[in-house]
Amino acid sequence: MRTQVAVIGAGPAGLLLSYLLHQAGVDAVVLEARDREYVRQRVRAGVCEQPTVELLTEIGLGDRLAREGLPHEGFSLRFDGADHRIALTELTGRAITVYGQQEIVKDLVDAHEERGLPLHFEVSGVSLSDVDTERPVVRYRDASGTLQTLECEAIAGCDGFHGVARPSIPDGVLSVFEREYPFAWLGVLAQTPPSHEELIYTHHERGFALHSMRSPEITRLYLQVDPAEDLAAWSDDRIWSELAQRLAVDGEFTLREGPILDKGITPMRSFVAEPMRHGRLFLAGDAAHIVPPTGAKGMNLAVADVRVLSRALVALLKGDASLAESYSDTCLRRVWRAEHFSWFMTTMLHTDPHADPFARRLQLSQLRYTATSRAAATSLAENYVGLPFGG
Amino acid sequence: MRTQVAVIGAGPAGLLLSYLLHQAGVDAVVLEARDREYVRQRVRAGVCEQPTVELLTEIGLGDRLAREGLPHEGFSLRFDGADHRIALTELTGRAITVYGQQEIVKDLVDAHEERGLPLHFEVSGVSLSDVDTERPVVRYRDASGTLQTLECEAIAGCDGFHGVARPSIPDGVLSVFEREYPFAWLGVLAQTPPSHEELIYTHHERGFALHSMRSPEITRLYLQVDPAEDLAAWSDDRIWSELAQRLAVDGEFTLREGPILDKGITPMRSFVAEPMRHGRLFLAGDAAHIVPPTGAKGMNLAVADVRVLSRALVALLKGDASLAESYSDTCLRRVWRAEHFSWFMTTMLHTDPHADPFARRLQLSQLRYTATSRAAATSLAENYVGLPFGG
Repeated sequence: MRTQVAVIGAGPAGLLLSYLLHQAGVDAVVLEARDREYVRQRVRAGVCEQPTVELLTEIGLGDRLAREGLPHEGFSLRFDGADHRIALTELTGRAITVYGQQEIVKDLVDAHEERGLPLHFEVSGVSLSDVDTERPVVRYRDASGTLQTLECEAIAGCDGFHGVARPSIPDGVLSVFEREYPFAWLGVLAQTPPSHEELIYTHHERGFALHSMRSPEITRLYLQVDPAEDLAAWSDDRIWSELAQRLAVDGEFTLREGPILDKGITPMRSFVAEPMRHGRLFLAGDAAHIVPPTGAKGMNLAVADVRVLSRALVALLKGDASLAESYSDTCLRRVWRAEHFSWFMTTMLHTDPHADPFARRLQLSQLRYTATSRAAATSLAENYVGLPFGG
Repeated sequence: MRTQVAVIGAGPAGLLLSYLLHQAGVDAVVLEARDREYVRQRVRAGVCEQPTVELLTEIGLGDRLAREGLPHEGFSLRFDGADHRIALTELTGRAITVYGQQEIVKDLVDAHEERGLPLHFEVSGVSLSDVDTERPVVRYRDASGTLQTLECEAIAGCDGFHGVARPSIPDGVLSVFEREYPFAWLGVLAQTPPSHEELIYTHHERGFALHSMRSPEITRLYLQVDPAEDLAAWSDDRIWSELAQRLAVDGEFTLREGPILDKGITPMRSFVAEPMRHGRLFLAGDAAHIVPPTGAKGMNLAVADVRVLSRALVALLKGDASLAESYSDTCLRRVWRAEHFSWFMTTMLHTDPHADPFARRLQLSQLRYTATSRAAATSLAENYVGLPFGG
């Protein structure tokens, strides 16, 4: 088998890249280890930056997003029992849209299937070779177990942090930058209307909490927990009680409870591998970098990467390597801004069990300053809504 | 002997407080352990926030400051071999004035002497008692060695970090918040015109450097060094060579060298003791809190403290304790803002020998963002020029 670009992974990065390439007249084949339903249902991030929404709209994938996505012009910053609104649109002229990552994935899977674009689920044993030549090869077993060989001109590693693409790069090529946090997120999806029309980011001495939503009927809630926490220790009652304590404010706020549809614990990690390219293998999204979820940057970074990568690959396959050469540097500027912002939001909002009393006071001073200084709020807001695409 | 307020320490905090109290018709006596010349010559900070300048002008001590002070409407942020101007006045409407702390001290000493206000140098063995009553007592030996007893209605502890006032407060009353940094500043005073009209804050992989000035003829320069560094290891040649390397930019910059008049090593510490009051003993300035010098906040915080304290004491001695009751909380809001900002400037600009590669990248991302985002630059600038006096 032959194609122009082999795309490893059918998350938002891989699917969007494949779609952008096909729109530009470049052939691509997407290979995904999981099955179709798993990919379509996997609950992930839910906040789209404005550049993400604009890109999806521009390529004709914005209809359902426009119908079902919830535009938000601000969010709440809650601490010391009081609420402070960060007026995103007033401060920056931009907004975010609440629309689940799995909805974007569904839209992209549907778009591939409608157009008959090659998208193979349940592949296994993927291995990459000759990535430092102009004719790389991907070997894998298809869903029926048959060995396949896919010859191509470039490979896009969009297979996430635990994928095979990054480890295929020889030792010594990548520099790795990493940070583990002493906490994790216990996330629940609840069948109840949101308790507030906007997201609520809460710093509480018992730990961070986040009130978010997926739709007018579905609430998404998160609690900071220990990374070693056992999910079994968290009954629904305990989850609701803990959320109510952390989200409480002086005045009007009632947490709406409902059946919990899904719960899970997500570790918090920062990770960057540089450069994002080795020969004809290009890394994009979580395969190259991870952010803690606090700033809602993970999916948006993946979208930004593949927008840059699609143009670089189109040019490369026409014989112009300049954008491919600059791909990593172009993406890494945005990646490091997001890494810094995600670290900043995470450290400002979580309760660090190892923080000394001085650090705790600095954290409160930072929160108070952010809530009262227009410059500080604007800085937070412009990072949150997402800086314009570079490159 | 009797007075209304015993002021311990003749630094800017103690002298300004005494002067403000006398202007308001309250008697005060200042006691200082060092001799007159030491106090007048001691080289310290040199950046006055606009509220500091306004206060000194308002009380009639602004003449020499207006003549000799150098108003600055911006400073340089230098890293990666490039220069970025933080346009303080354009961003905030405010400016700073370069005027040495010892010049303010000289002006205040002169003002005391001209008016015959009690200011005693070379006192020793100061001890405070009955501070939790309405008649506290200060005992000390005067310059001639004679034991003196000073009965008063309140004591102001303005005697710095190593003074006797704070340790006079019984164990268990104060909460202490502290941070030591893994670096110090080697500061030199050089007889040469400044190499640049504004301050230059430089982040360099060899360490932080600061170009400042005291006058059109005197340059003040700082180098980050190890806290255990031996001053003897730093010849003038080595100092100039190191400064030239760290301050270098691509393009035009020549460091002007000249005879070094003074050099010393200053440790970097953050420290806050809460509350800033115990009974009739009030702490102000470095006696209550220390910031690393990076944000130039130390003297300005002392000035802000004593402005609040002078009003609180005037009211207290007329029988209204409300401002005395709120003194600590009022000051601590500004103190913690300055503590956070000083920590932020320090960590953004210095090279931390213990930082992991991830932290180093975050630091560069923070610097680039500050240099390119108006919101981030405004946030830096508004903290640097100083927030308006509260309380």
